[in-house]
Amino acid sequence: MAGTWLPTLLTDTPQDGYALAVKLARVAVKMTQADPTIREDLRTVYEKDAGALIAVSSVVATHFQTVAAANNYWRDR
Amino acid sequence: MAGTWLPTLLTDTPQDGYALAVKLARVAVKMTQADPTIREDLRTVYEKDAGALIAVSSVVATHFQTVAAANNYWRDR
Amino acid sequence: MAGTWLPTLLTDTPQDGYALAVKLARVAVKMTQADPTIREDLRTVYEKDAGALIAVSSVVATHFQTVAAANNYWRDR
Amino acid sequence: MAGTWLPTLLTDTPQDGYALAVKLARVAVKMTQADPTIREDLRTVYEKDAGALIAVSSVVATHFQTVAAANNYWRDR
Amino acid sequence: MAGTWLPTLLTDTPQDGYALAVKLARVAVKMTQADPTIREDLRTVYEKDAGALIAVSSVVATHFQTVAAANNYWRDR
Amino acid sequence: MAGTWLPTLLTDTPQDGYALAVKLARVAVKMTQADPTIREDLRTVYEKDAGALIAVSSVVATHFQTVAAANNYWRDR
Repeated sequence: MAGTWLPTLLTDTPQDGYALAVKLARVAVKMTQADPTIREDLRTVYEKDAGALIAVSSVVATHFQTVAAANNYWRDR
Repeated sequence: MAGTWLPTLLTDTPQDGYALAVKLARVAVKMTQADPTIREDLRTVYEKDAGALIAVSSVVATHFQTVAAANNYWRDR
Repeated sequence: MAGTWLPTLLTDTPQDGYALAVKLARVAVKMTQADPTIREDLRTVYEKDAGALIAVSSVVATHFQTVAAANNYWRDR
Repeated sequence: MAGTWLPTLLTDTPQDGYALAVKLARVAVKMTQADPTIREDLRTVYEKDAGALIAVSSVVATHFQTVAAANNYWRDR
Repeated sequence: MAGTWLPTLLTDTPQDGYALAVKLARVAVKMTQADPTIREDLRTVYEKDAGALIAVSSVVATHFQTVAAANNYWRDR
Repeated sequence: MAGTWLPTLLTDTPQDGYALAVKLARVAVKMTQADPTIREDLRTVYEKDAGALIAVSSVVATHFQTVAAANNYWRDR
């Protein structure tokens, strides 16, 4: 993860915030398994595993909480 | 997930907020497994798996926290 | 889940709030598995599975956080 | 769970708050599996299962967050 | 867990707060499995189980949230 | 974990905060399994296990919530 990949938690819309949460969930996986070939192999497995997909969704939910709070829930838009 | 699917976290009622939380839980699955046929196959499995159903409920609970906070818990209604 | 089942997050007592959290945990399961017969079958399995019971308790805990915050922790009672 | 078992989230000390969190984690199990004999059987299993013990600890942690917030983290004691 | 083991959530440093979070995660296990011999047996298993170690880390993370909030994130130090 | 490894939760950027969250997730594992050889063995297993990688990501997400809140979500940068 060289370079700047997370300059801010602020986004224009809730939907952009959700996309950021998905990104935040993926980065930790990349940092733990740096080899893109292995990650691709794992992906072919877990994208057909309901439990894994729900677990990914859970991580996204936690990050979305953070991003939503950072943006004051986009209340003032 | 083309187009706008999450314009706001604000809802009229707690019940609408809960429905939004369910939606938020499902979108991460769609973004990870884009193929609707595979998702449908997975669904026939996990909808009969108590552990998976409870895990889905857990993701909904996390998102409902976010939506409820965004709406100031609908206290002022 | 036709009709209004969640008019408010406010409850008179912490104990009522806990009961609401239990309800919130169950509704997501109902929304994912709409068939009551299948749910009843699953119940006979998971109510004898320690892991599943603890997982249910975890979902209740997350919802109770939300309900407790909504009620300002019933501090002013 | 007849009668009042949760009159308040307020406790005198953090330690009492932790004990309340343990209780809150257990009640959801009781509400899902009402039969004390079956619960006792399950207990003999999960109390020797590291994964189950860690999962119980996780539920306690979530409830302790709630109780600690309710008590303003016992800062003013 | 006789005697006072949790007099306060306040710590001098974030690092001390993290140590307290580790302690809070362990106490729930002790309260559920009171026999130190069985706990020692379980430990020899789970300390070589990646999934269990990650699960322990998850419980610590939840408690650290609580302790950090209690200490106002040690911002004023 | 001798010496000071967590002097503060404050970081200059969200990205630095994320790196700190990854560190916080790893420390609990180190504290539970102190032997670096065993940890290395475990790593070769879990870094090829999608479920374990997602679980690590979940722990990072919880710690990132804490670090982000500590930094007031880096809103004032």
